[in-house]
Amino acid sequence: MVYSTLSPPLDLSHHFSSVTKRREASETKSLYKYFFIPGIANLAGGLPNASYFPYDTLEATVAHPRRFPATSDKDQIKPPSGSPSTERRIVPKESPTTNLLKKIDLTTALQYGTAEGLPVMADFIRQFTRNHLHPNVPYAGGPNTLLTCGATDGFSKAIETFTNPWDPRRDWISQREGILCEEFVYMNAIQTVKPRGLNIVPVAIDAQGMLAHGKGGLADVLENWDFRKGRLPHLMYTITIGQNPTGGTLSVERRREIYALCRQFDIIIIEDDPYWNLQYPSATAMEAGFRGSDAVDVIPRNYNAHGRSSGYDFLDSLVPSYLSVDTDGRVVRLDTFSKTIAPGCRLGWITAQPAVIERLTRLTETSTQQPSGFVQAMVAELIVGQQSEDGQNAAGASKNKSRKSEQAWQMDGWVRWLEGLRAGYEQRMQTMCTILEEGKYLIDSDSAWDDAPQPMADDENAWEVLDKMQMYEFSWPTGGMFVWVKVCIETHPLLEKYGSERLIQALWLHLMQKPYLCLSGPGTMFAPTQELLGRAQGYYRLCFAAMPAEDVSGITRRLVDGFRAFWQRKNLDGLDDEEVALSRLQAKGSGNLLGLGC
Amino acid sequence: MVYSTLSPPLDLSHHFSSVTKRREASETKSLYKYFFIPGIANLAGGLPNASYFPYDTLEATVAHPRRFPATSDKDQIKPPSGSPSTERRIVPKESPTTNLLKKIDLTTALQYGTAEGLPVMADFIRQFTRNHLHPNVPYAGGPNTLLTCGATDGFSKAIETFTNPWDPRRDWISQREGILCEEFVYMNAIQTVKPRGLNIVPVAIDAQGMLAHGKGGLADVLENWDFRKGRLPHLMYTITIGQNPTGGTLSVERRREIYALCRQFDIIIIEDDPYWNLQYPSATAMEAGFRGSDAVDVIPRNYNAHGRSSGYDFLDSLVPSYLSVDTDGRVVRLDTFSKTIAPGCRLGWITAQPAVIERLTRLTETSTQQPSGFVQAMVAELIVGQQSEDGQNAAGASKNKSRKSEQAWQMDGWVRWLEGLRAGYEQRMQTMCTILEEGKYLIDSDSAWDDAPQPMADDENAWEVLDKMQMYEFSWPTGGMFVWVKVCIETHPLLEKYGSERLIQALWLHLMQKPYLCLSGPGTMFAPTQELLGRAQGYYRLCFAAMPAEDVSGITRRLVDGFRAFWQRKNLDGLDDEEVALSRLQAKGSGNLLGLGC
Repeated sequence: MVYSTLSPPLDLSHHFSSVTKRREASETKSLYKYFFIPGIANLAGGLPNASYFPYDTLEATVAHPRRFPATSDKDQIKPPSGSPSTERRIVPKESPTTNLLKKIDLTTALQYGTAEGLPVMADFIRQFTRNHLHPNVPYAGGPNTLLTCGATDGFSKAIETFTNPWDPRRDWISQREGILCEEFVYMNAIQTVKPRGLNIVPVAIDAQGMLAHGKGGLADVLENWDFRKGRLPHLMYTITIGQNPTGGTLSVERRREIYALCRQFDIIIIEDDPYWNLQYPSATAMEAGFRGSDAVDVIPRNYNAHGRSSGYDFLDSLVPSYLSVDTDGRVVRLDTFSKTIAPGCRLGWITAQPAVIERLTRLTETSTQQPSGFVQAMVAELIVGQQSEDGQNAAGASKNKSRKSEQAWQMDGWVRWLEGLRAGYEQRMQTMCTILEEGKYLIDSDSAWDDAPQPMADDENAWEVLDKMQMYEFSWPTGGMFVWVKVCIETHPLLEKYGSERLIQALWLHLMQKPYLCLSGPGTMFAPTQELLGRAQGYYRLCFAAMPAEDVSGITRRLVDGFRAFWQRKNLDGLDDEEVALSRLQAKGSGNLLGLGC
Repeated sequence: MVYSTLSPPLDLSHHFSSVTKRREASETKSLYKYFFIPGIANLAGGLPNASYFPYDTLEATVAHPRRFPATSDKDQIKPPSGSPSTERRIVPKESPTTNLLKKIDLTTALQYGTAEGLPVMADFIRQFTRNHLHPNVPYAGGPNTLLTCGATDGFSKAIETFTNPWDPRRDWISQREGILCEEFVYMNAIQTVKPRGLNIVPVAIDAQGMLAHGKGGLADVLENWDFRKGRLPHLMYTITIGQNPTGGTLSVERRREIYALCRQFDIIIIEDDPYWNLQYPSATAMEAGFRGSDAVDVIPRNYNAHGRSSGYDFLDSLVPSYLSVDTDGRVVRLDTFSKTIAPGCRLGWITAQPAVIERLTRLTETSTQQPSGFVQAMVAELIVGQQSEDGQNAAGASKNKSRKSEQAWQMDGWVRWLEGLRAGYEQRMQTMCTILEEGKYLIDSDSAWDDAPQPMADDENAWEVLDKMQMYEFSWPTGGMFVWVKVCIETHPLLEKYGSERLIQALWLHLMQKPYLCLSGPGTMFAPTQELLGRAQGYYRLCFAAMPAEDVSGITRRLVDGFRAFWQRKNLDGLDDEEVALSRLQAKGSGNLLGLGC
């Protein structure tokens, strides 16, 4: 995209919080220019001496970028058989290069740096973002990027940048700011904004994501805003690809509609996109295949066909970010390495118009400063690698073939790695959804799972009379890590006796019993407001990502078995008290307490 | 210290900001207990699959803890000659131990975790802090700790926890909160609080640090508080050891006086202590030796003589934290690995009473989550190391001597490493201060530096007539990384012609000229308020830490030469325009732009 033919992004500084407006650049920056006087002794800084860092090298054994197969047909090039499946990476104490954009060494990475981050890492992110991930951002100059300590840190900083806290005991209701979000939402985001007193404003969704129009859709919410609740929301928080928890992916058409409304009502879009590379083109087709409906959007499309290509078929085939329609520069996008490398990186980045990145940089200077040099160096070494002065990958330029395995992934390897991950998670999604799809009905007392003599069709026991009872429903996730399952509790034979709320809670405990042993994510964990708790209660979020591929089938079968058995129960004995149920399950604190992730 | 005989810390929740008060624990935590059901399939979490992390091992070559000599006489045990000066560390993909407090592996460190951090790292910090660094915190139960992404992150979180932003266009002056600080102060702290609209309230200092009593001291400021400026400050920001920029260290006696005032006026003390292990007992004695005065506090004291010992002579000899007098639990202390391992760690911790740590943990959950697993794993591997189930260091327990070099530092090695760093920086401090001390007077036109014929004593040129002109004055720093030098510009022969302000600015440029080539830190970088800019202008901060030990002498001599030459100048030709001066210095952006540090 020729940025110069485009209009510059809008000045959106009226959205900055009062704290954000008052941030000043450090005066000490004015000293930087003197650092480059040849031979100058820098007595002005406050750096410890690098010879006192106790690390002489950092090293790693890492994966070849083709460790995992990709779904792409064109991907014929496998690692040659006999070649090592791992590679060595070494971050030296000091690199000979004087070019900071190529320098990966401990003397630089473990020393103080600027909020922009390790230059080689920041530069890689900037190139990847501007040239490959979002090659068609429609404003002059294009977006800028800033490293973060992961997307949660990025969101926290975006909220600090764009919102003033509101305290009912101190402020007027007319000062209360608000944030739009999907009806079901990643709760950590809500827990970030709620203590600030922000008005949390859910927008109705369908299987794709947020609705632009219709009842409860964005236009409806904004056009009928009740100002007695506070100001018209000026922010939106959204996950548009593999939405958490619903697994939906917003089409480009829907993005255009919602963006138009955000322009009309002057709303900043905070797009959280941790699963952008985990898009599953097969989901729609397989769902249609099972259900006998017409598949929409079966063939992977080239989303950049009318703009600049990303340079990679894989990236071109992905539904693009809101940034691709962001003529105003009102999109603030959060990225993370948590799902592409590892959550423990605590490394991500924000993409937005330069004026927003500038404010975020000031905030970073007085908070996290920059991500840990350990992760920056190790990720830079993994992807960018040591380079010679002329820009060649050091090992690649070497004639010594035995050193070939030290060649870094570079952009090609990085994109190939992403495609391999997509394939791995897509496989899990297909396995889980196929079994869920095949098992969603309880048919004729379920002879397949029950060796007992078949009841007569006119048997009066309610759980045996129905031909085909649907126990749950779901959409195949077009991205992400989750299946969002709605429990059809209204078909349960004991509905009248126990009521839906008690049944749902009992089902959740029942599924944890032997032999099912399935802990599913209660839908209430994803309700952004009290009002939505009731509806959310009818859902479970199932994560297919964490388990080994070979376990998905068995675990999902156990879950389906659990559903069947629950629909065949005659009472809820033993499922009344969570504590009692838990104690019977003999839970002991012995495993890895790793947190819930996202 | 027997914590049970002490009173519990005070409830200081009235100091929490309105946002802090409203933070809620994640409901998803209630699911943790189910994770431990034997054989449970966790479909509720949102973890990526650890097999997709591209790192199979992380490794490092690290220093032996005795790499640098210590000043301690008792320290006779040097690394045996011929033994390797480096050691290898390997963080495996998966550790066999089931004890999370001993587990250092990539499957854990690179996965999602809780805000408490990697258990083995968090546990080490807790043990070190409670048992060794602060063995005598005088409230029941003692303090708790929380990992941070360095002290700047820790300060930012403390400020978020204890202050409400104030906006003059929206709020009453009576709502404005304030923070006390030293007259000269680390500017990054000011830049953290200023945008929040806090009232920045400097307290007068002497060579030690903040004054409790006397003009401009803490009592004076608080007792004569002008409420038209806002609320009485309820926070204090202070660096009490090797203060930045002054190098002062606050005595225990002064701490008691200030703490008593903080109790009286209900003030939270945020103690930033990045240089706590860099205390220089030699400074006072050497300064007294040069100046013919009585040395005070020459002999290192055992500060824990009347309480529990830290277990290490070195730690016992250090001036203790405000925590050692914190009966109320009103001290929030910030620590960092920036000066003890490396700034690029972005790893530190907060120590405070448990109720404060709990609120900080909630904030961490929705911001940084936890420090990068890369740095946590590498630092844990450096200090704690792989341990067998029975608590032995894995390599140490091994009979195989060839593996001996894989033994981790453990607590003894860590403390020894700190002592070695202290010795290295103390040596630099002594070298710089000796040369500064010897060169602070310009004597009789300075024949030693001037081979020109000696002028007559009655020569009318002002710069040659004085016998002994003092060009600057300073106190020897008792800790930290800096010498805070006051320029005696009033002795300059050209004072009347140019005025002090212009002379000071010209001197700063002059010192950057060849052959002096010294960039010193302008005092104005450390003035917390506009009112203090004028006074601060007369100071330079000189960092002796960053340069190699063998360069300190030469660079300091160049600086002193520069002073002498400046006092001998007849005009300020060529020093009027900073830009012109800079261009003549041929500054080119080719070096490492690492930021200024602290």
